[in-house]
Amino acid sequence: MRDNGRILLAHGAGGRLTHELIESLFLRRFENKSLAALDDSAEIALPDSDPARAARIAFTTDGYVVQPIEFPGGDIGRIAVCGTVNDLAMLGARPLGLSAAMILEEGLEREILDRIVGSMAAAAREAKVDLVTGDTKVVERGAATRMYIVTSGVGLIPPGVSLSGRNARPGDAVLVSGTLGDHGVTVMNAREGLGFEGDLRSDAAPLNGMVENMLSETDGVHTLRDLTRGGLGTALNEIAGASGIRIDIDEAAIPVRSSVQAGCQMLGIDPLYVANEGKLVAFVEDRCAHAVLTAMRSHPLGRDAVRIGTVSAGEPSVVVHTPIGGARRLLMLDGDPLPRIC
Amino acid sequence: MRDNGRILLAHGAGGRLTHELIESLFLRRFENKSLAALDDSAEIALPDSDPARAARIAFTTDGYVVQPIEFPGGDIGRIAVCGTVNDLAMLGARPLGLSAAMILEEGLEREILDRIVGSMAAAAREAKVDLVTGDTKVVERGAATRMYIVTSGVGLIPPGVSLSGRNARPGDAVLVSGTLGDHGVTVMNAREGLGFEGDLRSDAAPLNGMVENMLSETDGVHTLRDLTRGGLGTALNEIAGASGIRIDIDEAAIPVRSSVQAGCQMLGIDPLYVANEGKLVAFVEDRCAHAVLTAMRSHPLGRDAVRIGTVSAGEPSVVVHTPIGGARRLLMLDGDPLPRIC
Repeated sequence: MRDNGRILLAHGAGGRLTHELIESLFLRRFENKSLAALDDSAEIALPDSDPARAARIAFTTDGYVVQPIEFPGGDIGRIAVCGTVNDLAMLGARPLGLSAAMILEEGLEREILDRIVGSMAAAAREAKVDLVTGDTKVVERGAATRMYIVTSGVGLIPPGVSLSGRNARPGDAVLVSGTLGDHGVTVMNAREGLGFEGDLRSDAAPLNGMVENMLSETDGVHTLRDLTRGGLGTALNEIAGASGIRIDIDEAAIPVRSSVQAGCQMLGIDPLYVANEGKLVAFVEDRCAHAVLTAMRSHPLGRDAVRIGTVSAGEPSVVVHTPIGGARRLLMLDGDPLPRIC
Repeated sequence: MRDNGRILLAHGAGGRLTHELIESLFLRRFENKSLAALDDSAEIALPDSDPARAARIAFTTDGYVVQPIEFPGGDIGRIAVCGTVNDLAMLGARPLGLSAAMILEEGLEREILDRIVGSMAAAAREAKVDLVTGDTKVVERGAATRMYIVTSGVGLIPPGVSLSGRNARPGDAVLVSGTLGDHGVTVMNAREGLGFEGDLRSDAAPLNGMVENMLSETDGVHTLRDLTRGGLGTALNEIAGASGIRIDIDEAAIPVRSSVQAGCQMLGIDPLYVANEGKLVAFVEDRCAHAVLTAMRSHPLGRDAVRIGTVSAGEPSVVVHTPIGGARRLLMLDGDPLPRIC
């Protein structure tokens, strides 16, 4: 895909072009260890006279431009809060506080804004975190689509916890916390009026409670990543690259609702690249896989958790094994099959 | 001003309507001490076995939608970095890390984006802080005006430092760090092609270095506020309300460049309400006023620092004394004389 020196929608899709943009533009300008790690959150050690005692905080930000702003199972406010809580949780951090910067379109109905803000407050209560600071800007009619929200979050990383996309190792089990693709297909259905019936609902939810359970069971968790923009396919490729590992996935083990499967077929997209807002992938030592799965399944948000694959040494790559014995490389996505899904 | 249940540009102006929106919408939904303080940053105490030893962090966020995105003396990237560093500095915090969430319009030239990101990196170097995490979203052509940036920041509040808009006290001296209105009039001139000549330049700059100097001189600094959206007039009204004090200002003492004065006269606006991006107001104990002023003036960004007024007990209010002996109440601004200035 050629960009002729201009920004394309695909630069925001979370796939190959997003990575290329981040590397050529941001990593070149801002050289520091936290940013270069490209994890869901940055880790910052507080200065302390005793470095071993230094508190470590996680810090993250995400913009939300989803259209429509309300959809079954959630809205832009809910995913803004959940997404940021989840990014903190992926470093094992307990949230200390959230911020919200709202960019509102002139003429937005206050009633709708009130509903969205109420949804943010409800999601923050679920995650047991306070929204402690914010900002509101208004742009002229047409200069935004109803509203955009940017949430940021600060969390405390417990002593001894060290999770990163660079930490996955040969032998690790690959676990997912539940069905894939629900959020993205739900938003597409709502936006395009595709008319899919049934149980389509966004899975937007704060995962920090489930992650606390997982981490309290074992010290064998190496990597967590929430499966937002770009879906499982992008997350696995990022981790394979960052950790220098090969990941083999059993396609038949990946949980996808039949309604989501049907929606993906009609849209001509692969559920492995569709955004989720309440699902994660975990890389854990094989000996701990059972205990971590049990911890996930004992939490309402991890009822459908399963093992889907295994890590081995080898050229960084993701290989999917199909039920009929085939194998295919799962690549980073090039374009943007589902724009403005989060 | 009636809103008929819809969001107006003035809701984002930082004046009375912004406050009304924050109170009716956000404070009602999110009840917590940090948010209710309405300071430039939220203060969060980290959990610690010894509460007296607990580290305190400052956390802040701000959205930037300025038009045009480049103007004399700065650009949207520079004010995004400086504004967030300054919000941390207003609690006396030393910046630990910044985040940036970019919302880009499809079709934006990469060359321009590269220049803005380079400007952000330069401002971060000036402030001696790293940009440690970020996010990029792209919206369709027309759904944003070139680009919006939301920056957030985390800082460490040194032990013993406690600054807040609620801490100003009768007897305090009121100091400003330099000339007012430069940023807002420069952006209006660039956007509307008003053709003012001369020394009009945005004052966008990171104030954390100067604030460190001020705080190292004395423990008599009670309140700092940077004079962004809404200008000095709004900041003084906020502090008068939060601290329950009367503030008397000597209009003749307020430093305004003649070019800014001329621009304001032509635009029919009061420089006291015009946004700055590198100026602060300080409330300090009278006995320390000289030492703090000296510390400010010894820093390049505080060369023109002066005392402009005094705090007394009384009904929360701001009274401006004119050179010819008159006095007028300075009220919170109602509408938005200068939309999208930051």
